[in-house]
Amino acid sequence: MSDGIWRGFASDNYAGIHPEILKALSEINAGHQVAYGDDIYTEQLSGVVKKQFGNAAEAFPVFNGTGANVITLQAMCKPWEAVVCATSAHINVDEGGAPEKVAGLKLLQVETPDGKLTPELVDKQAWGFGNEHRAQPKVVSITNSTEYGTVYSVSEVKALADHAHSLGMYIHLDGARISNAAASLGTSLGAFTTDVGVDAVSLGGTKNGAMGAEAAVILNPDLVSAMKYVRKSGMQLASKMRFISIQLVAMFEGDLWLKNAQHSNAMAQELYKGIKDIPGVKVEAPQANALFPILDPKVTEELQKSFRFYVWDHLTGQVRWMCSWDTTQADVDNFVAAVKNELDN
Amino acid sequence: MSDGIWRGFASDNYAGIHPEILKALSEINAGHQVAYGDDIYTEQLSGVVKKQFGNAAEAFPVFNGTGANVITLQAMCKPWEAVVCATSAHINVDEGGAPEKVAGLKLLQVETPDGKLTPELVDKQAWGFGNEHRAQPKVVSITNSTEYGTVYSVSEVKALADHAHSLGMYIHLDGARISNAAASLGTSLGAFTTDVGVDAVSLGGTKNGAMGAEAAVILNPDLVSAMKYVRKSGMQLASKMRFISIQLVAMFEGDLWLKNAQHSNAMAQELYKGIKDIPGVKVEAPQANALFPILDPKVTEELQKSFRFYVWDHLTGQVRWMCSWDTTQADVDNFVAAVKNELDN
Amino acid sequence: MSDGIWRGFASDNYAGIHPEILKALSEINAGHQVAYGDDIYTEQLSGVVKKQFGNAAEAFPVFNGTGANVITLQAMCKPWEAVVCATSAHINVDEGGAPEKVAGLKLLQVETPDGKLTPELVDKQAWGFGNEHRAQPKVVSITNSTEYGTVYSVSEVKALADHAHSLGMYIHLDGARISNAAASLGTSLGAFTTDVGVDAVSLGGTKNGAMGAEAAVILNPDLVSAMKYVRKSGMQLASKMRFISIQLVAMFEGDLWLKNAQHSNAMAQELYKGIKDIPGVKVEAPQANALFPILDPKVTEELQKSFRFYVWDHLTGQVRWMCSWDTTQADVDNFVAAVKNELDN
Amino acid sequence: MSDGIWRGFASDNYAGIHPEILKALSEINAGHQVAYGDDIYTEQLSGVVKKQFGNAAEAFPVFNGTGANVITLQAMCKPWEAVVCATSAHINVDEGGAPEKVAGLKLLQVETPDGKLTPELVDKQAWGFGNEHRAQPKVVSITNSTEYGTVYSVSEVKALADHAHSLGMYIHLDGARISNAAASLGTSLGAFTTDVGVDAVSLGGTKNGAMGAEAAVILNPDLVSAMKYVRKSGMQLASKMRFISIQLVAMFEGDLWLKNAQHSNAMAQELYKGIKDIPGVKVEAPQANALFPILDPKVTEELQKSFRFYVWDHLTGQVRWMCSWDTTQADVDNFVAAVKNELDN
Repeated sequence: MSDGIWRGFASDNYAGIHPEILKALSEINAGHQVAYGDDIYTEQLSGVVKKQFGNAAEAFPVFNGTGANVITLQAMCKPWEAVVCATSAHINVDEGGAPEKVAGLKLLQVETPDGKLTPELVDKQAWGFGNEHRAQPKVVSITNSTEYGTVYSVSEVKALADHAHSLGMYIHLDGARISNAAASLGTSLGAFTTDVGVDAVSLGGTKNGAMGAEAAVILNPDLVSAMKYVRKSGMQLASKMRFISIQLVAMFEGDLWLKNAQHSNAMAQELYKGIKDIPGVKVEAPQANALFPILDPKVTEELQKSFRFYVWDHLTGQVRWMCSWDTTQADVDNFVAAVKNELDN
Repeated sequence: MSDGIWRGFASDNYAGIHPEILKALSEINAGHQVAYGDDIYTEQLSGVVKKQFGNAAEAFPVFNGTGANVITLQAMCKPWEAVVCATSAHINVDEGGAPEKVAGLKLLQVETPDGKLTPELVDKQAWGFGNEHRAQPKVVSITNSTEYGTVYSVSEVKALADHAHSLGMYIHLDGARISNAAASLGTSLGAFTTDVGVDAVSLGGTKNGAMGAEAAVILNPDLVSAMKYVRKSGMQLASKMRFISIQLVAMFEGDLWLKNAQHSNAMAQELYKGIKDIPGVKVEAPQANALFPILDPKVTEELQKSFRFYVWDHLTGQVRWMCSWDTTQADVDNFVAAVKNELDN
Repeated sequence: MSDGIWRGFASDNYAGIHPEILKALSEINAGHQVAYGDDIYTEQLSGVVKKQFGNAAEAFPVFNGTGANVITLQAMCKPWEAVVCATSAHINVDEGGAPEKVAGLKLLQVETPDGKLTPELVDKQAWGFGNEHRAQPKVVSITNSTEYGTVYSVSEVKALADHAHSLGMYIHLDGARISNAAASLGTSLGAFTTDVGVDAVSLGGTKNGAMGAEAAVILNPDLVSAMKYVRKSGMQLASKMRFISIQLVAMFEGDLWLKNAQHSNAMAQELYKGIKDIPGVKVEAPQANALFPILDPKVTEELQKSFRFYVWDHLTGQVRWMCSWDTTQADVDNFVAAVKNELDN
Repeated sequence: MSDGIWRGFASDNYAGIHPEILKALSEINAGHQVAYGDDIYTEQLSGVVKKQFGNAAEAFPVFNGTGANVITLQAMCKPWEAVVCATSAHINVDEGGAPEKVAGLKLLQVETPDGKLTPELVDKQAWGFGNEHRAQPKVVSITNSTEYGTVYSVSEVKALADHAHSLGMYIHLDGARISNAAASLGTSLGAFTTDVGVDAVSLGGTKNGAMGAEAAVILNPDLVSAMKYVRKSGMQLASKMRFISIQLVAMFEGDLWLKNAQHSNAMAQELYKGIKDIPGVKVEAPQANALFPILDPKVTEELQKSFRFYVWDHLTGQVRWMCSWDTTQADVDNFVAAVKNELDN
């Protein structure tokens, strides 16, 4: 890694701020605004979110994805209730135990082949209703695109939403990379959320070009009244909220969210084309902006001397290569060349 | 309130971003940086904080003051321990119960005349050591400047730190407005923290001109190892941390923190001069950047039609008027004229 | 203190099991019963509790008073809500922080002259509804008889219940010594609970002659559905519940609760008569089964060499002397003689 | 089920109190004892536990097994740490989420073939040390005998203890049925706990003939200081503790624990002999006091009209039949006849 400016394939949250978002921040800086969300830009965001997710949608801007997930799940659950999720879900493996530690939530985990739940998989944990010895299943939480780069189709989300509701449960969608999912599906953001009955979305901005901006987007009106309280007691209420809201306005008012996601998805396809036929690389075609190749750990080790990226499964040698809004074709070509070079040795 | 650009006296977190901080954000935007704090600007902040608070100081950037307070107190306390604080402390009255709800902390509260604890006041709650029926007192938490705009002197903090330590307790300083305290005292930031034995500081940036940037600054090395875990499980770990760290670098590398605080303190003095002799206003001289006048509620009501500010005590009619880094002399003059006008009626 | 059998005035929970309760335990021991409350004795208790508290009353037997209080308050509160109580309340001072640590409850405390809240005192903390910066007041919790041995009258409880309800809040009555209160008031148990609108009672058995048996008694039907879950997740669900339930049946089916409480109250009157005129003893007449005399600490120290009892306030020299169901007139006479002897020196 | 006295095979906690334990309760009832554990019978228990588990052992009597487990695990874990356990562990499936909800503990679950962990299975979750995104693995928790009636051998526990310690982790043994394990192994209680490095044991009394008595038995001195606090704040501190302690004294002072467990284990063998060759019953030989046969659900349904027992796995038709200290040969014969009768139809 150089001391100067560099870009890699470790994560989309290694990237900086998209220029349009940075510009928006500076354009709304003058003067005072009421703190804690009673500002005009948060009001503007409200309209933007309704445009994307329908008139019932209510947006609650927060600092980060863990915050959006945990407070939303807390709003959905009474203290004795629980959340069904994939074993690989971010809430289960990558939030330092925050769901359990901040909100007392029990996560009822299901192994999945590809990071995606199905109604049948949900049923492995959605049982014991009315039996107080069991933390009561109340939410199905899915991630789209998933932690394994896969994408739920509209009908797959609908089947899960219908199933959850038939059990008296809610469905939550962790949308840290929801824009990548929509770009992959070629649909609106509402098509696989509002339109198919999702109750709440953690709307991601940061990984797609914001500085740090996420929102809990509540689609089920029953959940709205809890949100301002769980956001505050969950330490996710920004004082100068205008600067979070405006990032999301800049991203979701027009099509910046889509252009950025289409770009990072396309770069992942380019990367896939470049490496799929290299002997020693075992990889499936990306559905969103990440590849999960399996490599000889020695190759991984050598590559990591020049490129930072994460090993995803120590047992299998699976790694993660991820593209972001600022990945260039030259970045891809350069990285492909390095992989080739390493595997030629 | 106008639809256009305006400034008022409601709170220092109604103000925007100081231009130098906004500039710093844009200057470091290019290219990738490792996420979650392993970036070069967070490393730079580490040096800046050591310069301000001494070589043992370790900085953990977080999103907001509630987050800084709660995770720091959690790092100080075992699950059965408790925090002695003023009844008026922000952690007690203005954090939505986050200390109790996120960290299970019991707050052992003491009434104070002016928001300031003393060793004698601490003793009203610091007892019962070894008795498991009582949540065990472990931390004395003070705020400087306080929620009532008062300022602890260096020797007052030292007396509290010595007292806490003599009881086997830690001392935490909520420094949401630490720069205003330092400006008021005419000392360095370390003079009333590191130098007198404070164990940890919640270092405020947001209210003094940042967009949204605070840090838990740990001065007692025994507390360091817990911090990265409580920050993560407390949902306060920023992915693109460089953009939080650089705000604090821009503020604390040179003297921006001091200039901004001196300015807002000075504006509070100007406001005091303008109103202290108006009949119907009962007010004490400000020690930092806020005044707490007592007004006839009818006057308050009239003034609030044109100026947003908070009632601090419904029973007494006490209100809060606060200056910020961007308050101008014209703002003050204009507001004083309005107060005069109202009280002449 | 002797190595043999002794009785003192330290606490009513130093006493053993009333013979009728011990007998009941052994009489229902034969054979199997369904665990976790689906046994015939718990069903029997259900009827007994309805007889005492009205047909809507539902009983949830638990292990101890802290458990009864915390799970009942949790059933009343959403995670962001809070409980108004006297500073001297058992939940605040004597439960090791369990309300905060187990249930995340913030306690909004009010100083009282005698351990008793009033509507006016409640109002000191029951405010800020709808403001997410403040943990939302949802329950008024009172203790009858109080931690200071005082007794709320029927009309005092009614005034508090009406006030709580007018604010959209619940009222909870910690009845660890509810039988002593009823005996003192000369009323039924329902007269100052069900009949005046109390929403839930922590029904005490242990201090009044049980081995270890308390129950959450829910009077407001809206709260019932939560109870089995908070009891289980609060670790208060007994497997062999029949042995807890039968203790409460034995106590509340007839008038054992009343006889025991009348006796301990009467013994406290006898003790009062014996000591009230001793020079050096400052004491008010007991309202229930405890006296809170103020003594010279040296006298206290000497007396404690022969009799175990607790200092209630180190600053004033106040101590607590408590009678129990098994206190005898001879115990009282013997103790009075010792006090006299000590104060003659 | 009859209205009169009956016994079944649903659970060992359907059984009553062993006469020797009931007798002990009544023998120590006279007079006062200091509350909250400072009584002479709790002191006696201290000696009894040291005799069984070695001189370093410290006993903390509690109300129930969930309580013993959760407070012990809390004493072992900092708030950001986690517990590795079998997916089938009682703490994971049968405690209503108490570990997560009371103590914020994340349970890192491993599927097992038979309810038993191995070092290799532990390694599936014991990783990520030092990475704050992962709740930090700190305890390996095993149950002996397990929730599937299997028994860890001495060397199996030792291998797990050694492995846990080599990773800087603790090992906890849920001994709700520890006596059945010891009876099965033919060893002392210390042989597979203290002697092989187990750090803490949840010592079960209730299922083996007590009324309701368990204890956290701490074998690693580093954990002792936390215990009195987590017991109190975990709502597991009994006021009249003498009546819990004496149950455990009666059980563990002599060999009542062993005789009861040998009896229930032997009855399970008798039941196995009676049913193993019945066509339509698929069952393995019991290792402790429970059988887990697989039956046609219709047969189960018919049998449940006369005998209460639990279905253990709805998918496979597996049920649980459990013997207790009071199961008689006639009970077994009667039940075997019923099973035969049902399967003959």
